[in-house]
Amino acid sequence: MTGADPGPDDTRPQARRRPGGRTARVRRQVLDAVRAELGEHGYDGLTTDAVAARAGVHRTTVYRRWGDVGGLLADVLDAAFDDDWQPPDTGSLEGDLSALNEEIYAALTTQPPVMAALIAASFRSEKAARAQQRLWEDRYARCEVVVSRAVRRGELPAHTDARHLLVAATAPLYHQLVLLRTAPDPHLPGRAARTAALAAAAGAFAESPSARDA
Amino acid sequence: MTGADPGPDDTRPQARRRPGGRTARVRRQVLDAVRAELGEHGYDGLTTDAVAARAGVHRTTVYRRWGDVGGLLADVLDAAFDDDWQPPDTGSLEGDLSALNEEIYAALTTQPPVMAALIAASFRSEKAARAQQRLWEDRYARCEVVVSRAVRRGELPAHTDARHLLVAATAPLYHQLVLLRTAPDPHLPGRAARTAALAAAAGAFAESPSARDA
Repeated sequence: MTGADPGPDDTRPQARRRPGGRTARVRRQVLDAVRAELGEHGYDGLTTDAVAARAGVHRTTVYRRWGDVGGLLADVLDAAFDDDWQPPDTGSLEGDLSALNEEIYAALTTQPPVMAALIAASFRSEKAARAQQRLWEDRYARCEVVVSRAVRRGELPAHTDARHLLVAATAPLYHQLVLLRTAPDPHLPGRAARTAALAAAAGAFAESPSARDA
Repeated sequence: MTGADPGPDDTRPQARRRPGGRTARVRRQVLDAVRAELGEHGYDGLTTDAVAARAGVHRTTVYRRWGDVGGLLADVLDAAFDDDWQPPDTGSLEGDLSALNEEIYAALTTQPPVMAALIAASFRSEKAARAQQRLWEDRYARCEVVVSRAVRRGELPAHTDARHLLVAATAPLYHQLVLLRTAPDPHLPGRAARTAALAAAAGAFAESPSARDA
């Protein structure tokens, strides 16, 4: 999609001018500008010209490299792949899910609402939708260690469907804050975590034929 | 919002010409046209002119009564209040939640994707967003009887938070089909119902101080 993008880690000093360091720096400036514009004005106020102006780069640079607003949004989401985020490790399944949900809750309720605006943008731009899908896939995959740790501790049966458990634990946050648009409720992260942990302990996510066909 | 709308139930035969029967008939024709246009073309293809043409009414009628696309979408959602929908009554909590989820699943995966398009539109139009919120509030309120029946049958403790239980049971469907955009999975409705029922039986939604502060 924005296939010409280098990773942001190409920092060879002798290549600062181009294409490594400078390209990576321009990317950071532009993506920071996209997040800022999106947080302040939402999708409707987001233009390649405004992003270029805010980033201090020429508009043709933005146009050639990212194409359009959808390409900019997709690259903001793709850039999240480069981080080393890992889910919290608190020593218990409910603790891990609760800490994870607190992070999601903070991201969905913070101001300016960059994450909420990115999700909203995924209903406007096919490129952003696909990038949002890739990012969620990456995040849920990284979170599967929460379930394997709980299995190792003996909290859960060996054949527990990690993805279904993680979706059950996190879905109420997205549903209430993004779709139902209910007022933020600080009990929500812990409650959703506890619900999923109780269901998991009761065998809701056990990968047995009887469970799968239930 | 579209406060001049009469209910659709004014069908006095002697007033067919105006304003009762004819007004209600025009509303039905226009809202049917909105659903059809939305299902075929999505929000971006929805215009008051196309709706007027499809409904066979004059464009100024649409403009005067609904104002804009947001007003049309809001009235489609508001019209759902007038039905007599009730949640399924199967004799068990898990059965009721499963049947409810099957209805939601069907609505979210049917073609043309009118419900998905209405949800997407709620990220474009503030009027549609508020109407979608009102409709969900109405639907979740109607569904609370599922929980009170389970309490009466002794399946759940008397002080069970119906709304939290219902959100937990239904959220994975919206999360997977609307936000994560995963491929439809026919096991999803039953699995999410079973998860919520198991968590409920384990006391996840009990309204006690210890549960609320968890």
